[in-house]
Amino acid sequence: MNIRKRLFIVIFGTNTPAGKAFDVALLFAIIISIIAVMLESVSSLESRFGSVFRIVEWILTVAFTLEYLTRIYVTDRKTKYIFSFYGLIDLLSVLPTYLSLVFTGTQYLLVIRALRLLRVFRILKLGRFVGEGEQLSEALKASRHKIVVFLGSVLTLVIIMGTVMYLIEGGENGFTSIPRSVYWAIVTLTTVGYGDIAPQTILGQTIASFVMIMGYAIIAVPTGIVTVEMQKVKSAIAASQNNCPHCGSVGHDEDANYCKFCGEPLED
Amino acid sequence: MNIRKRLFIVIFGTNTPAGKAFDVALLFAIIISIIAVMLESVSSLESRFGSVFRIVEWILTVAFTLEYLTRIYVTDRKTKYIFSFYGLIDLLSVLPTYLSLVFTGTQYLLVIRALRLLRVFRILKLGRFVGEGEQLSEALKASRHKIVVFLGSVLTLVIIMGTVMYLIEGGENGFTSIPRSVYWAIVTLTTVGYGDIAPQTILGQTIASFVMIMGYAIIAVPTGIVTVEMQKVKSAIAASQNNCPHCGSVGHDEDANYCKFCGEPLED
Amino acid sequence: MNIRKRLFIVIFGTNTPAGKAFDVALLFAIIISIIAVMLESVSSLESRFGSVFRIVEWILTVAFTLEYLTRIYVTDRKTKYIFSFYGLIDLLSVLPTYLSLVFTGTQYLLVIRALRLLRVFRILKLGRFVGEGEQLSEALKASRHKIVVFLGSVLTLVIIMGTVMYLIEGGENGFTSIPRSVYWAIVTLTTVGYGDIAPQTILGQTIASFVMIMGYAIIAVPTGIVTVEMQKVKSAIAASQNNCPHCGSVGHDEDANYCKFCGEPLED
Amino acid sequence: MNIRKRLFIVIFGTNTPAGKAFDVALLFAIIISIIAVMLESVSSLESRFGSVFRIVEWILTVAFTLEYLTRIYVTDRKTKYIFSFYGLIDLLSVLPTYLSLVFTGTQYLLVIRALRLLRVFRILKLGRFVGEGEQLSEALKASRHKIVVFLGSVLTLVIIMGTVMYLIEGGENGFTSIPRSVYWAIVTLTTVGYGDIAPQTILGQTIASFVMIMGYAIIAVPTGIVTVEMQKVKSAIAASQNNCPHCGSVGHDEDANYCKFCGEPLED
Repeated sequence: MNIRKRLFIVIFGTNTPAGKAFDVALLFAIIISIIAVMLESVSSLESRFGSVFRIVEWILTVAFTLEYLTRIYVTDRKTKYIFSFYGLIDLLSVLPTYLSLVFTGTQYLLVIRALRLLRVFRILKLGRFVGEGEQLSEALKASRHKIVVFLGSVLTLVIIMGTVMYLIEGGENGFTSIPRSVYWAIVTLTTVGYGDIAPQTILGQTIASFVMIMGYAIIAVPTGIVTVEMQKVKSAIAASQNNCPHCGSVGHDEDANYCKFCGEPLED
Repeated sequence: MNIRKRLFIVIFGTNTPAGKAFDVALLFAIIISIIAVMLESVSSLESRFGSVFRIVEWILTVAFTLEYLTRIYVTDRKTKYIFSFYGLIDLLSVLPTYLSLVFTGTQYLLVIRALRLLRVFRILKLGRFVGEGEQLSEALKASRHKIVVFLGSVLTLVIIMGTVMYLIEGGENGFTSIPRSVYWAIVTLTTVGYGDIAPQTILGQTIASFVMIMGYAIIAVPTGIVTVEMQKVKSAIAASQNNCPHCGSVGHDEDANYCKFCGEPLED
Repeated sequence: MNIRKRLFIVIFGTNTPAGKAFDVALLFAIIISIIAVMLESVSSLESRFGSVFRIVEWILTVAFTLEYLTRIYVTDRKTKYIFSFYGLIDLLSVLPTYLSLVFTGTQYLLVIRALRLLRVFRILKLGRFVGEGEQLSEALKASRHKIVVFLGSVLTLVIIMGTVMYLIEGGENGFTSIPRSVYWAIVTLTTVGYGDIAPQTILGQTIASFVMIMGYAIIAVPTGIVTVEMQKVKSAIAASQNNCPHCGSVGHDEDANYCKFCGEPLED
Repeated sequence: MNIRKRLFIVIFGTNTPAGKAFDVALLFAIIISIIAVMLESVSSLESRFGSVFRIVEWILTVAFTLEYLTRIYVTDRKTKYIFSFYGLIDLLSVLPTYLSLVFTGTQYLLVIRALRLLRVFRILKLGRFVGEGEQLSEALKASRHKIVVFLGSVLTLVIIMGTVMYLIEGGENGFTSIPRSVYWAIVTLTTVGYGDIAPQTILGQTIASFVMIMGYAIIAVPTGIVTVEMQKVKSAIAASQNNCPHCGSVGHDEDANYCKFCGEPLED
């Protein structure tokens, strides 16, 4: 086995001790890099430790760049990796620092920096969490049509409610425009309730109460959707694990030796 | 097939490519019209682009009017359509603009405009989302009695809690009347929590804590109701796929071996 | 059938047309009475319509008193009714108005008035909602031990978190005492979030973030408890409806004629 | 039976009347002690009843110390008890008062005092609630991997959203640094919504609306996870009640006719 193949197993694999160690080290490097970006934005820390943050950033950027190039080198399907989700994230997570040399506009630099935070998704590649994550996303994918219908209804509701409140409360009570009133309706329906805009008239408060109770009841809908889909994914996994060669029944437990319906032995 | 029948399929149908294209175009027209109404309410935009908004509004109103008249022309059951839910919404969504010519009172005009936003419901007619929407509304319909009992209990609770808080906190702490205190109780129980009215006395804060924890626990009730009903709707759909080869009846459980109506064995 | 028995059926029964009409009339009287009490607390309405509210209150109090006395007269088990939950509520809902004649202290009078609002529970006696309400309360009763454990854990958590925040933030940031900090912890954990007390230090905001995410995840627990219990109540009702005389299996659908497991006819 | 064994049954057991009485007494002592600590932090009460609180604290500390020493004396596995969870809590719940004699720094003293509140966990040892608590914690333990994936996703989301809002809103609107913006994102996503930091720009409010609706939908995920796991724990308990008369194995499904381990028919 040549070096290229060994590196592939270490960098892309997660089963060998070396592969695991690499992933954990990468995880820590990403977290340190994110913390450095976050702390750099605190002006009091920036003025005192600014140079430290920049050194950490450059060291990690160079390390991530080397890692990115190694990934391209060791993989056989280079084009597929480069244009895969993680390939693009890997590239985007090192570009901003290099771009900061060319473009001196701090504002723009910071916008691109935010994308580096997406690197944290690589954490999810670690070991046993992937299976659980897939179960979750499968359940969410199965309920996506219902969720679109749900979000569409919620959106219609907040637009109508926002417009009604704009007409009732008016600009003097903070409802200065329909978009701002719709923003208030979302803040209220989702039970966030900042309190920066709040109804002052009795009619407005009555309608707001109605929106709140509705929001309180509506939350049952996405919960119900996701719970039912998760139950189904769980059942499907359980059912697919074992079927009786005699009567064809499925859904036997993993530890079953005999069919629970006809009593014949199970094969696996 | 004459033109009238063809138009009917395009306008009312959703299965042909032309019908689909028509629905998508209608959807975009509605969204543009809603955005125009919303942006018109922002005073800074109104002063600069006011005439653009009015032109967009008039063009779309004329288009929707033509669409409405065509719908009446092509359908065979004209009276049924006109007085159906969507028929009335179609009419109400064009009326306000025409009324704005006669009545110059801006306030009244805007009130009627809000109804145009209901047009967005037509989105739900698009393709595959209808089935999902029907599943959702069936589950909600099945749980409506439980939801009425639940809402009744919540209403009783907020009236009692609001009155108690009115007596404890009094007008000097913002609880100026029982209706206002009930409004506070709803804001708190639904976990919205604006903070415009908040208890100041120790006894008031203790009772408020009680209301909050109760609100936090009570939300489990509608969630449980809807989840159980959705599970049932899902099972009913699954059951309707298992049918008896002897008597043709449907609705057998997935694990049934014999038809529950005629006693003959099920095939699958 | 004498008058006493007929009155009993009208007042206590809900199946005859007269009984139904009586209940609906009672319902409206209670709602009017509650609205009168609520509006009386609004000072601007009190000064203008105060005498109207007092007349409505006296008329309804006399009517409810007559109703209460009739209930005692027509029922055979008088003592049982008087000391039953609804019997006590019926009495307590008329007493405050009479007591207001003797005790002139407005404060005390108002405290007792609040109890009249409990009358609204009588609404729940109306027809078909009782069954649904019983299903709900059965599910809640079955999960009461789990809910006590849950509430105990939440209480422990908010006490510890409140104390920690009191030590970190201190009086100058609004956390003036442990009880007040515990109040803050409840406001935060239940996701109410008034904003009257909010952490100012970085450490305080970090711990607050932890409390919020925990509160967000913890809400899953009562929801899970209640959903599972409701599912169980539903299944128990379904299962108890039908059992096979041949193989003893239960859980057959209401419309089943033959056992779905052994194919033998069901008896009922 | 000697005194040591009898004391063991009273102190560690919960089945005898004496054991029950001891636990209830202990529970009250813990609650009184916690209330004393909490009230001592209220400055107005401290100045008036400060000495009372200190006397209560010393009496209860001595009582808890005696209880702790007796527990060590009566148990056979002394080392195991001392280093068990409850053993450590028992020790930590008396230490702070003694330490307050040596170290005069009031601040530090109070920090350690907070740990005494953990004593309340001993309440959970009382009788029948343990089983329910174990069911809850078993369900939570089974869903821990999914919850880690969920919390990781939420954390990634709030970091990205916080950074985006920091760039859009900037310091002048309260988003002074990325950590503070992340704090805002957590406050918003969890629907707490203090309102101490709230977006002011239109783009900021639009993104905030997106975060709110997402937070509103995301809460369905932990709820779904916990509900499904609870259902499973419940089913497992039900299954453990069905056991094979031939091989004695348990865990058969309720609808099983034959033992899944040995193939012999099940009796029930």
